[in-house]
Amino acid sequence: MPFLSDRDKVAIIGSGNWGSAIATIVGYNCARYESLETTVNMFVHEETITLEDGTTSHLTDIINDEHENVKYLPGIALPDNVIAVPDLAMAVRDATLLVFVTPHQFMTNMLPIVAESAAPNCRGVNLIKGIDFDHERQQPVLISRMISRAMGTQFECGSLMGANVAWEVAKGELCESTLACDFGHLSNERTTKVFDAPLFRVQHIHDVAGAEVAGALKNVIALGAGFVDGLGHGGNTKAALIRVGLVEMAKFGRLFFSGVRNTTWIESCGVADLITTCYGGRNRKCAEAFAREQLERCKGYAIKETHEECKQRWTRLEKELLNGQKLQGTLTAKEVYMSLKSRGENVNQFPLMKTIYEIAFEGRPISQVIEGIRVTGSIENNFY
Amino acid sequence: MPFLSDRDKVAIIGSGNWGSAIATIVGYNCARYESLETTVNMFVHEETITLEDGTTSHLTDIINDEHENVKYLPGIALPDNVIAVPDLAMAVRDATLLVFVTPHQFMTNMLPIVAESAAPNCRGVNLIKGIDFDHERQQPVLISRMISRAMGTQFECGSLMGANVAWEVAKGELCESTLACDFGHLSNERTTKVFDAPLFRVQHIHDVAGAEVAGALKNVIALGAGFVDGLGHGGNTKAALIRVGLVEMAKFGRLFFSGVRNTTWIESCGVADLITTCYGGRNRKCAEAFAREQLERCKGYAIKETHEECKQRWTRLEKELLNGQKLQGTLTAKEVYMSLKSRGENVNQFPLMKTIYEIAFEGRPISQVIEGIRVTGSIENNFY
Repeated sequence: MPFLSDRDKVAIIGSGNWGSAIATIVGYNCARYESLETTVNMFVHEETITLEDGTTSHLTDIINDEHENVKYLPGIALPDNVIAVPDLAMAVRDATLLVFVTPHQFMTNMLPIVAESAAPNCRGVNLIKGIDFDHERQQPVLISRMISRAMGTQFECGSLMGANVAWEVAKGELCESTLACDFGHLSNERTTKVFDAPLFRVQHIHDVAGAEVAGALKNVIALGAGFVDGLGHGGNTKAALIRVGLVEMAKFGRLFFSGVRNTTWIESCGVADLITTCYGGRNRKCAEAFAREQLERCKGYAIKETHEECKQRWTRLEKELLNGQKLQGTLTAKEVYMSLKSRGENVNQFPLMKTIYEIAFEGRPISQVIEGIRVTGSIENNFY
Repeated sequence: MPFLSDRDKVAIIGSGNWGSAIATIVGYNCARYESLETTVNMFVHEETITLEDGTTSHLTDIINDEHENVKYLPGIALPDNVIAVPDLAMAVRDATLLVFVTPHQFMTNMLPIVAESAAPNCRGVNLIKGIDFDHERQQPVLISRMISRAMGTQFECGSLMGANVAWEVAKGELCESTLACDFGHLSNERTTKVFDAPLFRVQHIHDVAGAEVAGALKNVIALGAGFVDGLGHGGNTKAALIRVGLVEMAKFGRLFFSGVRNTTWIESCGVADLITTCYGGRNRKCAEAFAREQLERCKGYAIKETHEECKQRWTRLEKELLNGQKLQGTLTAKEVYMSLKSRGENVNQFPLMKTIYEIAFEGRPISQVIEGIRVTGSIENNFY
């Protein structure tokens, strides 16, 4: 088998909201380009769906018959060449390009199966946003790196990150996205073709670490945005929070990973995704509710909530407000905090992320989110 | 008289919404620092105000008696040491630091009076957002540069720009601001002290041109944001527009002015002000209404409005929606377009600003704002 196949065979691992939305794009491209195998397997964790007439059906059968993911992306037509496959090994068999878009807690069990079945010259693109913390080595780990480790040393993994709310992508509203990968020139171009579409504008960069740090940490900053909204502050304060958040994201990236470039923060995966998330996302929404509840409960008195009380509150809000979706920002806030703590005094150089963590989990009053913004000086001194 | 006075004497030229808001900050600092003369003169264009009991009073008398600008910033206490002065020459007499915050169309007549009365070693800080177009030389001119030209060759002028909605500053909500000036180390520090306050965090940079370009051009991008909102698109598209807008602002700055630094776009005057303006400002608001009207009127047919019809529509919307405030983005959009035209083919390298101008004034359909975003590639290629 040649190192670079004549035609790429793409498989999508995951079929939730974002997985199904990206399948509309990937399917469209695989149908139109010669260099891509037309059929796109999409691994679907099988579920039994109760239909309107009371009968039941497998989700994969519905997707393959109706070309619609009625559970996670109802109302959107999937391309005919996207095939739902309930068996993971079969789904990725001989694939040369894997698209990872499944909740990251499931990955540990799935990766050995994927490694065994995919083509030996396979590469990957990670769409999962988050960051892992390696307790043994006391350091943060990129999801793409975690994938590469599990897949074998030869496996190269990039990521696709950006201001890409799944529903809006599925409805065909124009957006930009950032493909970060370093597969070599020809392979980078080919991979870009898998994702770039007339209304889904993909820009290629090389900085995988920067893109993933941005994709993960924006959810932490969005918690801060929710706190500011809950306090009833206006646009000035929120814009300041977003700006300081961007500066701290860049600093975090530089501190823990090599090859992080400053230009990455001006890409869709940087400033654009941060903006969307701070104005519209689920992390912002839950954090606003968290803030309002704390303000209501404390009414100006200094009642400090315990770590356990904070955790319970987040769990309840997630259930009440997110309709089964997961809150990522709180988990990432913890991982960021642990990462910084592991380096000693560094945590004080990240006043905003530190303050957000302490408000979220250590009962610090909501109003102190302001303190996390106030102390940052000019970027002339600390961004570059 | 020594070149650098022992104590700075600050005068504020202008007393509208923003002028009065900054007077609360400047007044506070001049009262607390030894290095600043306590009294701050604020030039007020005199008006007669009809009081609740039917009697009338001068606006300056009300400000000096009640310490409140009842017309332009009602409900906010001005510091006692801010003195309203209706005579421009008297207001700026012997001032060593002038704060310019009056609508820029009035400046041409005012500057000769200011030049004659201020101290010879005087310097200035411009708070006026906008850009001039020099028809003779066919090039854009910074407001700070226009001020320096009128004040005399020795006169140095910086600017204060940032995500600073006047009302929110006046109410004491935390925000950041960018002071751009290059007066020399000691004088830069002193000038920072005039503006920096516990809830108004000033970061000093040297790049005056970049800060002013950002302050002016964000209003053009905000028109685009209003168009996107009027079309009913979601956060992805708006984030893409803001990002591409930031890239074009940076390109414009580099094309026309020397000394523009890339770091400037990550300051409050750059990305933060752009965000606030694209989510909350008056330019966005009028542009959204403009979009909705055009969509309603054309209902899918290609009815092209003339330049005159477009102009009339903006004038009407400005009256209906802005309650006496001025729409700056449309004027700046024209000046930007003329600037780019003057350099020949360059206009096509700014697809977003070109598209916004053509929608605003040449009857191009609103939906084509998307085209202005689509064509931009990665910043790796065009930002740095």
